[in-house]
Amino acid sequence: MRNFKLTLCYDGSRYRGWQKQGNTPNTVQGKLETLLSRLLEQSVEVHGAGRTDAGVHARAQTVSFRADTSLDCGELLKALRAYLPEDIGALSLEEAAPNFHARLSAKEKTYIYRVWNSETPCVFERKYVYVFPSALDMDAMRRAAGLLCGRRDFAAFSTGKKREGRSVRTLRSISTERLGDEVRLTFTGDGFMYNQVRIMTGTLLEIGRGDRSPEDIERIFASASRAEAGFTAPARGLCLWSVEY
Amino acid sequence: MRNFKLTLCYDGSRYRGWQKQGNTPNTVQGKLETLLSRLLEQSVEVHGAGRTDAGVHARAQTVSFRADTSLDCGELLKALRAYLPEDIGALSLEEAAPNFHARLSAKEKTYIYRVWNSETPCVFERKYVYVFPSALDMDAMRRAAGLLCGRRDFAAFSTGKKREGRSVRTLRSISTERLGDEVRLTFTGDGFMYNQVRIMTGTLLEIGRGDRSPEDIERIFASASRAEAGFTAPARGLCLWSVEY
Repeated sequence: MRNFKLTLCYDGSRYRGWQKQGNTPNTVQGKLETLLSRLLEQSVEVHGAGRTDAGVHARAQTVSFRADTSLDCGELLKALRAYLPEDIGALSLEEAAPNFHARLSAKEKTYIYRVWNSETPCVFERKYVYVFPSALDMDAMRRAAGLLCGRRDFAAFSTGKKREGRSVRTLRSISTERLGDEVRLTFTGDGFMYNQVRIMTGTLLEIGRGDRSPEDIERIFASASRAEAGFTAPARGLCLWSVEY
Repeated sequence: MRNFKLTLCYDGSRYRGWQKQGNTPNTVQGKLETLLSRLLEQSVEVHGAGRTDAGVHARAQTVSFRADTSLDCGELLKALRAYLPEDIGALSLEEAAPNFHARLSAKEKTYIYRVWNSETPCVFERKYVYVFPSALDMDAMRRAAGLLCGRRDFAAFSTGKKREGRSVRTLRSISTERLGDEVRLTFTGDGFMYNQVRIMTGTLLEIGRGDRSPEDIERIFASASRAEAGFTAPARGLCLWSVEY
């Protein structure tokens, strides 16, 4: 069995997320496994670095899979490009070390959340941004972003089941930049829980709009309660940007 | 009656072009006239600077219309933004001089044609580029672009009915630039005929790929025959970029 590392991009708009779920059709993992199994005439299971939610995009999702094949990477990449739908792109394929695993070997991931902070319509990139036209205090957002970083228990910033001590992650940096009408939030850390980036984004936007103060961040951490944090920003603005190994 | 100047952008993918045609639904002009007539409670006729074809986009189409209303531009712009579909954006609205006409007053238009010149998939901007992965000789394309410019009879570079002497236009410049995997062709001139930018693009791509030489341009002009020019590049790569008055 050879081990492969595949880099994918996708427009997540019409998918129910990365991870296949029973018989749910239209997951990126499901599409890819079906295609690889057909191309390689064997059952192929793939692992993605990040389990992106329904509607979330990926600029560079890393995927690993094992297969028994004599095809070279160039041939297999060409076949993938020929058969993947136009909203999923195979960027590169290489042979990986036998113990490489896209999720377990990942050291750090970067997600970018794109906010369209203007009344001016955003037509061409409308599927990749969240429209939030309220005036934003970028300094307050920057201060709050600084308070979110570090090795912390992010229980309050995620949804779904939690177990004591299982929600500790290291968030290395959040950069907040304005690019014309867009505000771009870049999160880099060793791992993110379910909805974590979207809840952190919603919290930062509430702080930017002045509904909360940056100092709320410590109170939210202390509460360990999802209800204390901000709203969950919509999936469409979020993109898995890169994965470091 | 007041006269207005509206700047619109649109993703042309799902429209049958700018110009309304009898009862054809889904033209940008048709959508806009229906909405303005409803908002202003009177029959409104709009004029666009460029009659973009089915599937062609606009970053800044200029539109003029007359109406009898006491609404201020800010209120009307807000109403347009509230009711236009998400693939048409109202960028700005201002009151214009009584004799301003979006098409007849236009001095110059710029169209950009985006070619995705790579085997690497283009997922996020797939609706706005034409995928043409063959190697391109940019120098040959630049030489040919230079030969296309000037005050010439562009009969060979357009489709549809022509009348003697009615196909003379001034093409001021064509810039050809490579931006990573993309080749971007920018055409600026005083007017363009039906399919002219797309046929010039197809001809330049055939020259870039080495199927023709730049010197073919003179032969094509001399023939005045559409059959001598290159293929019509697909609508999706074309965008009306700006209009000068």
